[in-house]
Amino acid sequence: MSTHYGRAQHLETPPGFVHDELTKAEVKEREAALVPLTDSVRRLIDALVRTQVAEQGMEDVRHRVDALTEELLADALPGPHGVRFGSDGGYRNYGNPVVGKGNAIAPPIAFQRDGEAVSAEFELGPAYEGPPGLVHGGASAMVLDQMLGEAASAGGKPGMTGTLTVVYRQGTPLGPLRGEARIESVEGVKSVVRGRLLTRPADGSEPVVCVEAEGIFILPRWARQDPAGVDREHVGEA
Amino acid sequence: MSTHYGRAQHLETPPGFVHDELTKAEVKEREAALVPLTDSVRRLIDALVRTQVAEQGMEDVRHRVDALTEELLADALPGPHGVRFGSDGGYRNYGNPVVGKGNAIAPPIAFQRDGEAVSAEFELGPAYEGPPGLVHGGASAMVLDQMLGEAASAGGKPGMTGTLTVVYRQGTPLGPLRGEARIESVEGVKSVVRGRLLTRPADGSEPVVCVEAEGIFILPRWARQDPAGVDREHVGEA
Repeated sequence: MSTHYGRAQHLETPPGFVHDELTKAEVKEREAALVPLTDSVRRLIDALVRTQVAEQGMEDVRHRVDALTEELLADALPGPHGVRFGSDGGYRNYGNPVVGKGNAIAPPIAFQRDGEAVSAEFELGPAYEGPPGLVHGGASAMVLDQMLGEAASAGGKPGMTGTLTVVYRQGTPLGPLRGEARIESVEGVKSVVRGRLLTRPADGSEPVVCVEAEGIFILPRWARQDPAGVDREHVGEA
Repeated sequence: MSTHYGRAQHLETPPGFVHDELTKAEVKEREAALVPLTDSVRRLIDALVRTQVAEQGMEDVRHRVDALTEELLADALPGPHGVRFGSDGGYRNYGNPVVGKGNAIAPPIAFQRDGEAVSAEFELGPAYEGPPGLVHGGASAMVLDQMLGEAASAGGKPGMTGTLTVVYRQGTPLGPLRGEARIESVEGVKSVVRGRLLTRPADGSEPVVCVEAEGIFILPRWARQDPAGVDREHVGEA
């Protein structure tokens, strides 16, 4: 289940949200160190998937990875990162496995808004492989769940995923891809969002639709108190 | 799109599959080094999601991560790992983001078989967080896609995911979980598989169903030549 957040200061604090009141400058300074480190760990994950070094070499690397983990844990949250709000109302979901700036599992994907439409250009490499050379169907579903949720939010209807249906039209090649989503219809607290993943050919040839998805998103109870407080400008920043 | 493989030596080699003819002993030796290293990188990912160390500390760690990546890349495949078959016919999908022994993105999950039923007990930690304290809906979908595919294979109908429908009944708590799946029906090259994710309470209380899924799996063209060659005993080993 994903939740997609609007600007929340007008709402009662939803459960599990943390207001740490970091200023915009503090967030910027923090991310200037965090984002490159997360990118580096992503490259490590990719290298591990592909490495052919001998067993002894892997063991040497392992001991040093463990030492780095200890250093990062010297001062760490005891549990998940959660969603944190700064003094400007912006939110940070660093642990999100699709968009999280502190999560090396995330490709990561930065979604763009054009009115109510959401899109993204991104790459999925060897760490997202299912069938040989192709993206794992579950990885596509994970990206689509997040993207459809972002589109629900962009359309002013942030919500929790109720149902996600993913139709695989053809194998999705590893490499550069494009995602697109937008709200199809809204009925009360329920919105239906459609989206798809396409190839992004380097040679300028026509993109091919690989995966299509439909999501039903439900406005969370805590956000129903003041739907007008949800800031349509905010999605995609976190 | 996921593919789930049976023992393939009776079939024409499907596209992108590599026969490297490693012996069982060689695979065992390799995995004795690879699996602990991948576990270590998983702990690094988790530590990074939770770390609060200062910016300078993160930068120090980053330089050393980059050095380790270089070491692993000194001898590495130029592209994705793919699916590799050894001399005993067993396959290795180390890069799979759900079950891959060399993929730190994977929780990882080891599926168990009981006849045609597939199940797994596993944990999803802070790196799989969507809403605060809860599993990202896309991460649940990713696990379910793989599990339903494994069940299709366990039921003798390995296939590519055609359609995956995921229904979120309630928030899935981060922590210990259980997954279950089995084939519901088969019609020609198409099988319908059902599965679900449940809580796994430490106090012995009743598990709660958090997510349900239905998948339609299509037997790949290359496997239609000799369906009898698909070894029902093999799934879940890779």
